[in-house]
Amino acid sequence: MERVYQFAAGPAVMPQQALRRAAEEMLNWRGSGLSVMEMSHRSPAYQEIFDHTVSLLRDLMNIPEDYEVLLLQGGATGQFAAVPMNLLHTSADYVDSGNFAHVSMKEAQKYGAVRCIASSREENYRRVPAVDAAALDPKADYLYVTTNNTIYGTRLPALPESGNVPIVADMSSNILSEPCDVRRYGVIFAGAQKNIGPAGLTVVIVRRDLLGRARPETPNILNWTVMTEKGSMLNTPPTYAIYMAGLCLEWLRDEGGVEAIYQRNLRKAKLLYDYLDESRLFRPIAEKSSRSIMNVTFRTGSDALDAAFVKGAAAAGLLSLKGHRVAGGMRASIYNAMPEEGVKKLVDFMHKFEKNTVEA
Amino acid sequence: MERVYQFAAGPAVMPQQALRRAAEEMLNWRGSGLSVMEMSHRSPAYQEIFDHTVSLLRDLMNIPEDYEVLLLQGGATGQFAAVPMNLLHTSADYVDSGNFAHVSMKEAQKYGAVRCIASSREENYRRVPAVDAAALDPKADYLYVTTNNTIYGTRLPALPESGNVPIVADMSSNILSEPCDVRRYGVIFAGAQKNIGPAGLTVVIVRRDLLGRARPETPNILNWTVMTEKGSMLNTPPTYAIYMAGLCLEWLRDEGGVEAIYQRNLRKAKLLYDYLDESRLFRPIAEKSSRSIMNVTFRTGSDALDAAFVKGAAAAGLLSLKGHRVAGGMRASIYNAMPEEGVKKLVDFMHKFEKNTVEA
Repeated sequence: MERVYQFAAGPAVMPQQALRRAAEEMLNWRGSGLSVMEMSHRSPAYQEIFDHTVSLLRDLMNIPEDYEVLLLQGGATGQFAAVPMNLLHTSADYVDSGNFAHVSMKEAQKYGAVRCIASSREENYRRVPAVDAAALDPKADYLYVTTNNTIYGTRLPALPESGNVPIVADMSSNILSEPCDVRRYGVIFAGAQKNIGPAGLTVVIVRRDLLGRARPETPNILNWTVMTEKGSMLNTPPTYAIYMAGLCLEWLRDEGGVEAIYQRNLRKAKLLYDYLDESRLFRPIAEKSSRSIMNVTFRTGSDALDAAFVKGAAAAGLLSLKGHRVAGGMRASIYNAMPEEGVKKLVDFMHKFEKNTVEA
Repeated sequence: MERVYQFAAGPAVMPQQALRRAAEEMLNWRGSGLSVMEMSHRSPAYQEIFDHTVSLLRDLMNIPEDYEVLLLQGGATGQFAAVPMNLLHTSADYVDSGNFAHVSMKEAQKYGAVRCIASSREENYRRVPAVDAAALDPKADYLYVTTNNTIYGTRLPALPESGNVPIVADMSSNILSEPCDVRRYGVIFAGAQKNIGPAGLTVVIVRRDLLGRARPETPNILNWTVMTEKGSMLNTPPTYAIYMAGLCLEWLRDEGGVEAIYQRNLRKAKLLYDYLDESRLFRPIAEKSSRSIMNVTFRTGSDALDAAFVKGAAAAGLLSLKGHRVAGGMRASIYNAMPEEGVKKLVDFMHKFEKNTVEA
């Protein structure tokens, strides 16, 4: 099969420019005689690669100087434990806006008191729950939010006003997809495998004054303070994933950066939602006010038709459109690296499928 | 620079066959139209890649059916916490045979009682300390050993007889380099970046009856029981590192497997040690009875000469021979993927350097 369009929720489509470069440099990185995979993480050549990735991320997100950027392992799921281990001493407030938020809240309960201050779980997370400012604990160690809920295709419409309580955000599925004022957060974390690079790398952005608070049982690899002191290299980092992230971030920079990609992302999402709002066959799943521009969920209402659609699309080179099992239906993940052309092809295919189905 | 020989302690030299294959398949894995990096970890194609890596490892190490093989993140350093979190309830015995063993012991102290039953720390770890059978606690939760000490170039000469106490082994720097009777261990773990594949992947081999004992504060990503239940995919695994490990293990299989590579490793180590034992300039650092066949440490006795040697070797395409800062001198890491030709070139260069120095 020729190159296809793949709508998986992560790992997901990557910039072809980055993949081509990686293939070219696989056996010999820029005349070094070595593959990046073979380089000692303590070598000057590798440190340069590492610093380049961090520096691109700092530039693209405009990360202030008083925030540390850590490149770690373990995914967002690792941070579900790391967040309470590094910050939870009295109590923390959680917004339960999806399955991952829920799992994160459960993980935090291992380490201390956790309050669920808003939840849409009863509605199968079709929307992001509204946060009542009065419900917030002004003495909480942190307020936890998920800025985009991959499974349900919802997006946090507005960040709660939390006063002095630092906001911790799982940004795994929409980091770098839209402008973000880092100053509004105490901690941002993200698994790389959607908008940053390959799986196996976790980015943590933490405001420096939040360091030094880790609980005694925190494993070193999840301890932000230790990792800050060691420049993310307490132990061997995921060296190749960090290199690949650098190639992907170079592509994002070359595309014009976050503001430019945001405009493209809006166009891509609009193409799909406009069609869904008009369709006689497909229905959007997420509530309009909470719609994600990264993950678009929809269904026909018939499991058999859903399955036929997913199968037909795959045969046409439009892959991985099956929704997550807890949400059902279909999901098109249209991260930064998904070209507009891919979304157009998808909408064309949906049109055709609708026509054949409705007229049949 | 053309391809070079690189003696780094890890990440380290990788099989060129694996790197060539990775380069060829980077944009389109076997006609799928996708890079492996872009594949959903939940897709059948990726599951096949994952299972292939596990199956190769099971075959090459002859891992019995009642042992689980987990492919995780966080490196050996992550397992320094995971071991006590999954097993420590009363007390554990540690053999302090090197810096990593020491760090691991310190990490375990966060979670419970730890006894250091043998140490060569006072001798800067030049040998692996002898374990007095009478010193072992027959009720210990586990006995912890490091089978090869990367920094000092030492190797555990014989596994202690621990009776019913399960042995937990950090095998990061000699896994797959020599035959290993897995049945003698309760748990084996290893960072991949020496003899398995690229950095960012951690292999844990655990006897099934040791599952189900995790401490309540264990983060899910470090919980062997949870990870076993989820087939190592509680969350997104380091998908590309697992694929690369598969390519590297295919190479090892094609080379004849562990017994064949062991014979070659013995020849490589003998070349170096035979020369070192005769040299008028270089002295081996590790005590003879504890010599590693993976990491060979040596020095001239002069810091200036050591530095000149490392520099001269690098100019001759023999890279990363500087010893670890805590051990000093030089270290040649000659993992499985280092060809005999590389060791021969190194010994030739040492000869020449010695001749020029001694005659000067």
